[in-house]
Amino acid sequence: MNRQLCPALDDRVMTAEQAAAFIAPGSHVGMSGFTGAGYPKAVPAALVRRISEAKQRGTPFTVSVWTGASTAPDLDGALASVDGIDLRMPYQSDPVTRSKINAGLLDYLDVHLSHVAQMVWEGFFGQLDVAVIEVAGITADGSLIPSSSVGNNKTWIDQADKVILEVNSWQPAELEGMHDIYYGTALPPNRKPIPLLQAGDRIGEPYLRCPPEKIIAIVATHNPDRNTSFRPPDDASRLIAGHVLDFLAHEVKVGRLPDTLLPLQSGVGNIANAVLIGLEAGPFRPLTAYTEVIQDGMLDLLRSGTVSVASATAFSLSDDGIAELRANIGHYRDRIILRPQEISNHPEVIRRLGCLAMNGMIEADIYGNVNSTHVMGSSIQNGIGGSGDFARNAYISMFLTPSTAKRGAISCIVPMASHVDHTEHDVQVIVTEQGLADLRGLAPRRRAQKIIDHCAHPDYRPALQDYFDRAMASTCGKQTPHLLSEAFAWHSRYLQDGTMQPAPVAPPVSSRPDEPAPARAAR
Amino acid sequence: MNRQLCPALDDRVMTAEQAAAFIAPGSHVGMSGFTGAGYPKAVPAALVRRISEAKQRGTPFTVSVWTGASTAPDLDGALASVDGIDLRMPYQSDPVTRSKINAGLLDYLDVHLSHVAQMVWEGFFGQLDVAVIEVAGITADGSLIPSSSVGNNKTWIDQADKVILEVNSWQPAELEGMHDIYYGTALPPNRKPIPLLQAGDRIGEPYLRCPPEKIIAIVATHNPDRNTSFRPPDDASRLIAGHVLDFLAHEVKVGRLPDTLLPLQSGVGNIANAVLIGLEAGPFRPLTAYTEVIQDGMLDLLRSGTVSVASATAFSLSDDGIAELRANIGHYRDRIILRPQEISNHPEVIRRLGCLAMNGMIEADIYGNVNSTHVMGSSIQNGIGGSGDFARNAYISMFLTPSTAKRGAISCIVPMASHVDHTEHDVQVIVTEQGLADLRGLAPRRRAQKIIDHCAHPDYRPALQDYFDRAMASTCGKQTPHLLSEAFAWHSRYLQDGTMQPAPVAPPVSSRPDEPAPARAAR
Repeated sequence: MNRQLCPALDDRVMTAEQAAAFIAPGSHVGMSGFTGAGYPKAVPAALVRRISEAKQRGTPFTVSVWTGASTAPDLDGALASVDGIDLRMPYQSDPVTRSKINAGLLDYLDVHLSHVAQMVWEGFFGQLDVAVIEVAGITADGSLIPSSSVGNNKTWIDQADKVILEVNSWQPAELEGMHDIYYGTALPPNRKPIPLLQAGDRIGEPYLRCPPEKIIAIVATHNPDRNTSFRPPDDASRLIAGHVLDFLAHEVKVGRLPDTLLPLQSGVGNIANAVLIGLEAGPFRPLTAYTEVIQDGMLDLLRSGTVSVASATAFSLSDDGIAELRANIGHYRDRIILRPQEISNHPEVIRRLGCLAMNGMIEADIYGNVNSTHVMGSSIQNGIGGSGDFARNAYISMFLTPSTAKRGAISCIVPMASHVDHTEHDVQVIVTEQGLADLRGLAPRRRAQKIIDHCAHPDYRPALQDYFDRAMASTCGKQTPHLLSEAFAWHSRYLQDGTMQPAPVAPPVSSRPDEPAPARAAR
Repeated sequence: MNRQLCPALDDRVMTAEQAAAFIAPGSHVGMSGFTGAGYPKAVPAALVRRISEAKQRGTPFTVSVWTGASTAPDLDGALASVDGIDLRMPYQSDPVTRSKINAGLLDYLDVHLSHVAQMVWEGFFGQLDVAVIEVAGITADGSLIPSSSVGNNKTWIDQADKVILEVNSWQPAELEGMHDIYYGTALPPNRKPIPLLQAGDRIGEPYLRCPPEKIIAIVATHNPDRNTSFRPPDDASRLIAGHVLDFLAHEVKVGRLPDTLLPLQSGVGNIANAVLIGLEAGPFRPLTAYTEVIQDGMLDLLRSGTVSVASATAFSLSDDGIAELRANIGHYRDRIILRPQEISNHPEVIRRLGCLAMNGMIEADIYGNVNSTHVMGSSIQNGIGGSGDFARNAYISMFLTPSTAKRGAISCIVPMASHVDHTEHDVQVIVTEQGLADLRGLAPRRRAQKIIDHCAHPDYRPALQDYFDRAMASTCGKQTPHLLSEAFAWHSRYLQDGTMQPAPVAPPVSSRPDEPAPARAAR
């Protein structure tokens, strides 16, 4: 299947090895890819081989890797495993890369996903040397059919000196027409309003533009995206989803939300899927989604008509989800719009639409400050992704997590968050399987009591209450009372003893049997 | 001077006492006022008398007070001193109110200034019962001439069941025509782009609208605004301003900023004034400002033509500044636009214009997380104001502070911020009198070294370096290395010993001889 249909570009077709030879040591490389979709599959592997060979010769060889969000083991993981990355941005979730970051072996810039494109354009990170972009095809006139994610591809192509294209014939040819690439952005003082008024508006064009003279290599591939495994929701996820759905129903009832709700944004993973399943069973329709990622649960809602249109920047599907997408792609192509992440996550648009933001987290403190990124304050888990873009600008900003992690050894509600990504100012609702805390209109002291009462696991609730009571009694500052000398005692205990529970170790609780990696806006 | 020119409203004219009688215990009261400008001067005092009398009779009487931002001792201070406020939002800077908040005697909601109007409209804080709004006059057709601040007045009038107007003839009659009240906002799903493309654009109308049947009382006053004392910049402020100006010049030189810069946002106070004075002496013009507050320094730049137009939501002037404004109000009226704070602080507009944000702070940590609100983690100082609106959406987000406070007893650069209002994701430049740390493109580890080297006071630099080095050596998470057991040791030492300096107490350093209250977006 030849998807490169532009005769004028035929002379750029070459092997991945030949293409990778254009990437010099020290380059800034902009790669496609978002949540394991649409990342280049061949050139990164060839680059890994080049780097390995150089290192065997004793020649240093690293590059900076800029992407949309997470890619896959064969990109981030493979490059990190040969220590070929000196700087990575913005979001990643690869275990090898994570371990290298936390070992101090590579620099990681964790940037709001809506900020990346503009900051590169503004020149804040230096010149982009090479873009390596997966596309689903090249039309006869040289237009690029975007792949299963858009991410920062428009910006990488615009900003890079040279462009390497991977044309992946594994991607459905019917993706053509699904994308909406907006070319109206500018640098200040020349910026104009983004003319997007509803989640389903198309404001751009279905193709990426690239001046042909920039294209230095075209590599044909036929490789699948990283699939995202899908598990049916567990008990905790179903309980969390139930609290969210009850809350939304209440907001509709009291007139604070229309009965078609407002555009949904939901993170990836088990809890998000449980919310989507709950919406399918609920009374609200037709719904819309303005979010980052289309996952399996969203396909179901689009299929049934519960969701009339979903805007995102990428897919993140299981094997079954990919099969469903291919089987009914005509239906989905009319109802899914993939946009550049600077638009899917744009503060202007999110605030205008009034998104209902639902994101996971690592921990929240009793005052509602949220840690989305750092385990025990120091170790990066994944990154902030788009959670800040949505939380700050949402109509209602919700953060969801089981109340405990590591079989109860970690409380996800703590006296003080060991790292803050979303401040009390941006967090309106916190939900665990224990319940929902609606924090709107509450001063920090009131927020604390509500979070302790509604969200904390019963095994940790008395200790949280004790901390709060003693802080109230002894600090002179009762706006946000803290005991600084023991604010992180729970985290320190976990680092030392492997549990936040005071000794003697209590029998494990079991609300969160899986790993602590949170569902978050991007993966 | 009768400024109430609408015959149909003559029957609502009454005394402040009569007007205050309309405010029932438990009411939600929306007051005008922003940075001590345009707040009501008579009804609050009458309300204080009413509350005092009720309490003498043993009858409880409190109200919720919603404003634009800070008001004055005769509003916030007087009401707080009789314990007449049960809840206050969004920003305040009154010492009596602060002490009541920190004593746990009144609830304080610290909300992004751009969020307040929409959240009230969305019904998140309950119904607004009464608005008490100062105006500069009422025209023959019943239009309201706004006063020296706009703040949330449009929203208070729209949302309140009843409206009390204070017509203050002390305000210059020539304010008429200076304001731009935008009536195009809506609730989702009906929001549209805000059609503001340049700082000087007028997109609304010069008057506030109020249905006459809502107006229950009109009170004539002739009282000055709280003036804001103006001191010439001290040495630290001049040094900080110098670093900022060098940085801006460098950005222009390398092509990352145009030579008319981008619209300036600057907080209030000594440092901000020093920056403005520096700009007056510099090569860049004509400049524009898109900010919250017009202070004395901005008048000078508008007078000279260095700044061609300044958009804000309020004045905050000294006595001399007020005299200058009155003397040349024709000049200023063509160059100053006062808008509702939901527009002056709107994320959509700030990002579109690409503001250069300069805000004060209480402390930053070595990774660039900023605390704008809480002294030693628990006690509220003032509030977040608009600093988050600007920092998140700015072209470049700068935070400025002397490196020490309390005559050197406090380091404003600390191992870990004791409260976080602006995360590493939103802080690009930190400046003290010691120097400037440009954090763009740096991973947290690199940020730390830069902040320690460029911003920390020499008396604290070795201890910061020691903390950072030991954290790097001993933590398994080297993305943001922290020693949780001693992250707040400096703050704890200050609370216990009155200094962050380890014993024996070193001779005081003197870079910040005044109180630690920071210059911030709003006061």
